[in-house]
Amino acid sequence: MDKEKFIISAFANHINGDDGAIVDGYCYSKDLFCEDVHFKHPWMSLEQIGAKAMLVNISDAIAMNATPKYALLGLSLPKYLDIKEIENLQKGLLDTAKRFGILIIGGDTIADEKINISITIISKVNHKAVFRKGLKKGDLFAFSGKLGDSLKGLNILLRGGKLHSNHRFIKPNLRQNFFYDIAKKVRVSMDISDGLNKDLSRILSLNYLNVKFLKKLDKFSLNSGEEYEILFAFDKKHKAFIQNMAKKHRVKLNIFAKTITGRYKFYGREHHF
Amino acid sequence: MDKEKFIISAFANHINGDDGAIVDGYCYSKDLFCEDVHFKHPWMSLEQIGAKAMLVNISDAIAMNATPKYALLGLSLPKYLDIKEIENLQKGLLDTAKRFGILIIGGDTIADEKINISITIISKVNHKAVFRKGLKKGDLFAFSGKLGDSLKGLNILLRGGKLHSNHRFIKPNLRQNFFYDIAKKVRVSMDISDGLNKDLSRILSLNYLNVKFLKKLDKFSLNSGEEYEILFAFDKKHKAFIQNMAKKHRVKLNIFAKTITGRYKFYGREHHF
Repeated sequence: MDKEKFIISAFANHINGDDGAIVDGYCYSKDLFCEDVHFKHPWMSLEQIGAKAMLVNISDAIAMNATPKYALLGLSLPKYLDIKEIENLQKGLLDTAKRFGILIIGGDTIADEKINISITIISKVNHKAVFRKGLKKGDLFAFSGKLGDSLKGLNILLRGGKLHSNHRFIKPNLRQNFFYDIAKKVRVSMDISDGLNKDLSRILSLNYLNVKFLKKLDKFSLNSGEEYEILFAFDKKHKAFIQNMAKKHRVKLNIFAKTITGRYKFYGREHHF
Repeated sequence: MDKEKFIISAFANHINGDDGAIVDGYCYSKDLFCEDVHFKHPWMSLEQIGAKAMLVNISDAIAMNATPKYALLGLSLPKYLDIKEIENLQKGLLDTAKRFGILIIGGDTIADEKINISITIISKVNHKAVFRKGLKKGDLFAFSGKLGDSLKGLNILLRGGKLHSNHRFIKPNLRQNFFYDIAKKVRVSMDISDGLNKDLSRILSLNYLNVKFLKKLDKFSLNSGEEYEILFAFDKKHKAFIQNMAKKHRVKLNIFAKTITGRYKFYGREHHF
């Protein structure tokens, strides 16, 4: 194992590897969003950085069927930012929090060299949390939306191009209303942050199961990270219900695999910045 | 206002300026502990850095009369750290969490350039939270322990010296048992992180009151930051009770001021790294 992997794994103590930890009916999740690790400063405006930092954290709560209620912010901000930029960062964070009904209840801010944002989201579990464990043989796998654009956008940025403010890489599109409506019939779920292939392999290895693909997915769909669509599985008897809910919420639904016994082999690479 | 102050103040949204936010019987607090902002790497071992990062966060919960239960860790760790050093950091964090009965339930880790630790502590309020607001004229002000050593230690470090592993600057000494026992008779409290003078001025300005000092404190006691002793005020009728509790817990108690009307003028400087 290389050192970077060791650093990450030494503290990989999410309970059961889930997006958030469930305690007494609340879901607690915390993700970092850091300059030169998750984004390059010139790629996004400060408002976009604030909004994406909040969205990637909210995404964890949604994937567990929890409604975000409160947030704590930990901010390292470089001294070279001017007041207008700081106000824009604030706007991105606060507008996004407000849109999801989240109250920012505290945090800590320091002046440092880079933009590093650490957010803790406290969410109320809707009725029953959805975890990554609990998959059963025969369950169908699906993801919301369309995958691939985040990686395509990243490639444009890495070549020095610019992205539209509505591009997926800049502004993930979360599926809270759809997912909350189907959650009671969902067996396992997680958000797609490291690419479908990688995230699917996580769920499968946790559950000692494998999949048979029902359709061929292109390499962008398989490997694009930071999509923040939802990967989930359900008993096939709920297929019509879930299809109807997708239609009701106008969310594209892609049922792409069936759970079988065996062991999934992860061949791909993680493609995210 | 200079830019650094603006950066800090733009997100200074602690509810009422308290150490933590109280929601539904829980206290949520989050502090950053960052290389070159709160410490220089050569000053402390990785184990000491992990332990202090946890202690300064636990201190917030104690000062609000809440018992820490869970923690989420956000870690940025430099790639140059070797595996032994990472294990030592982990030991400092985990041993301290364990000593206080805290379960680490999640978090996020990235490889970056500096050691930046962001911790969220979820605590259960013991019976009633103690805030910074609520001070009354006539209340007596006290602090636990002895102040000044943290600044003296910092001065030694800044001159290139070394500190003993039990030095206050390396390892704050928290007063949970004493404070939990007196909390029901305490009117307001906070931990001393920016120096008695500065922290006292915060409580007084929040409450539109002033103090008359009952004794002369030296400049180290007044200005030393990162002490993590508790500053608190109480109705003078509880003086004997609080003195007895301090004796029972073998905590030095310094009753140093009496609350009067008027406005406190903060003249000093904040002395912490």
